[in-house]
Amino acid sequence: MAEWLWDHGGEGFAQVYRTDEVLFDAASPYQRVRVVRTPMFGRMLVLDDAVQTSEADEFCYHELLAHLPLVTHPAPKRVLIVGGGDGGLLEEALKHPVERAVMVEIDRMVVDATLRWIPQIPGEAFEDPRTELRIEDGFAYVRGCAERFDVALVDSTDPQGPSVPLFGAAFYGDLHRLLGEDGVLAVQSGSPLYQQDLVAEVRRNLRQHFPVVRTYLACVPSYPGVLWTFTLASKRHDPKALDPQQVDRRVAGLGLRYYTGLQHVASLNPPPFLRDVLEA
Amino acid sequence: MAEWLWDHGGEGFAQVYRTDEVLFDAASPYQRVRVVRTPMFGRMLVLDDAVQTSEADEFCYHELLAHLPLVTHPAPKRVLIVGGGDGGLLEEALKHPVERAVMVEIDRMVVDATLRWIPQIPGEAFEDPRTELRIEDGFAYVRGCAERFDVALVDSTDPQGPSVPLFGAAFYGDLHRLLGEDGVLAVQSGSPLYQQDLVAEVRRNLRQHFPVVRTYLACVPSYPGVLWTFTLASKRHDPKALDPQQVDRRVAGLGLRYYTGLQHVASLNPPPFLRDVLEA
Repeated sequence: MAEWLWDHGGEGFAQVYRTDEVLFDAASPYQRVRVVRTPMFGRMLVLDDAVQTSEADEFCYHELLAHLPLVTHPAPKRVLIVGGGDGGLLEEALKHPVERAVMVEIDRMVVDATLRWIPQIPGEAFEDPRTELRIEDGFAYVRGCAERFDVALVDSTDPQGPSVPLFGAAFYGDLHRLLGEDGVLAVQSGSPLYQQDLVAEVRRNLRQHFPVVRTYLACVPSYPGVLWTFTLASKRHDPKALDPQQVDRRVAGLGLRYYTGLQHVASLNPPPFLRDVLEA
Repeated sequence: MAEWLWDHGGEGFAQVYRTDEVLFDAASPYQRVRVVRTPMFGRMLVLDDAVQTSEADEFCYHELLAHLPLVTHPAPKRVLIVGGGDGGLLEEALKHPVERAVMVEIDRMVVDATLRWIPQIPGEAFEDPRTELRIEDGFAYVRGCAERFDVALVDSTDPQGPSVPLFGAAFYGDLHRLLGEDGVLAVQSGSPLYQQDLVAEVRRNLRQHFPVVRTYLACVPSYPGVLWTFTLASKRHDPKALDPQQVDRRVAGLGLRYYTGLQHVASLNPPPFLRDVLEA
């Protein structure tokens, strides 16, 4: 029987989906993991009660979180991904000529459920010889890691439970240590419509360690309110210094569906009503 | 007691709002008219079961439907608005140095309910000496009208009931006749996520009469799916020929919160995944 899945965003507001089929529903040590089928977005990965990604629009979130920072770095070879168990972000990163991608996901069930039920999201990313998948706590991994990276991407759930430290200044300091002098970091930083405090906190914490901090905007239709923010932090390269033509050259032939040179500029230059949130 | 308002968008998908207060709820000859108070969007105007506009984000829809076509015309003096009973579109149009704005709204109750309960949306627009408000059927008015206009804006509900003819080729032909040789028309043309057929129909019908047809994109947070389309039709001027600096000069000092030169370009150049819908 059809049921309705409520994904709350802010006070008294939700995006609601009819779930025509529950393909997977289990509790991991960290969270409830579900894969459901909905008419408009196809199969969706749901962690606790929040939609993480969907068959229909996964590229929106993953392209913006992957390519904008990767293009900001002049020649990324080594990429670290924290979280992102569905593999969609990893798949986008591997479209670039990187040599190594380490992905650290705390919850094996997220990886397994995606591979079993929505395999088109990771594609072949987990089998790529450049990939090293580690199932462990990302915070602890980053703290103890001696390897150096060019780009680090944090694809976390909302700041609840095990994700809380992934938004903190200590974690960002550890990531700063792991990054080379051209290093670029990007994180998902929440809704500009109802998580303004989170956006501000992420920006404040990143500024403790990085001279360049830029919050940028994308549309993710399966997230409540659709408008979503990511925040990039960098040791020297400013994504605002890139023009659309430079971006288009870097992503030519990658088959992207959202991120282009023009979208790069639009994402980094929000309409006036969001400037207070994105540029505070 | 709090209830939840469901605004359905596409199959098995809705944006849902907690309504903490019902300020107005009555049946007009055309539709159910409600004004409710919600935590995230403040006061909302709801016609039948569809959110039309809200205190918090009305400028998103109204700025994009007004300013992009007004700026595409070199010097608009006479503006016709069909629908738009809440007055938000009228208010935006009057920010330009127009000499006359005729607004034809079929349902007096929409005007009255907005003026009583969300007066900040129209502001002083209905009292402006340049405004002529006519309560009558827009289709019939346009068919019989002998006056000429520079810009026509159609702010209709979804194509149901009395709004159906407002999406038809006959209506667009009548509007073409009313417009001068620099004439520009713009209409709301639905969601690119679940009303692709409507977008295509509007474009097809407009192309029967106008050489330039451009569908453009905006984010309207209180509409299901947030991404929304408008379609501009023009006798000679192409909005794509304007550069951001030209647009910014035209809207300088108007105090806009969404529409800028950069947003003009971004709206007219959708990400690749929406090109099939917006440019078909």
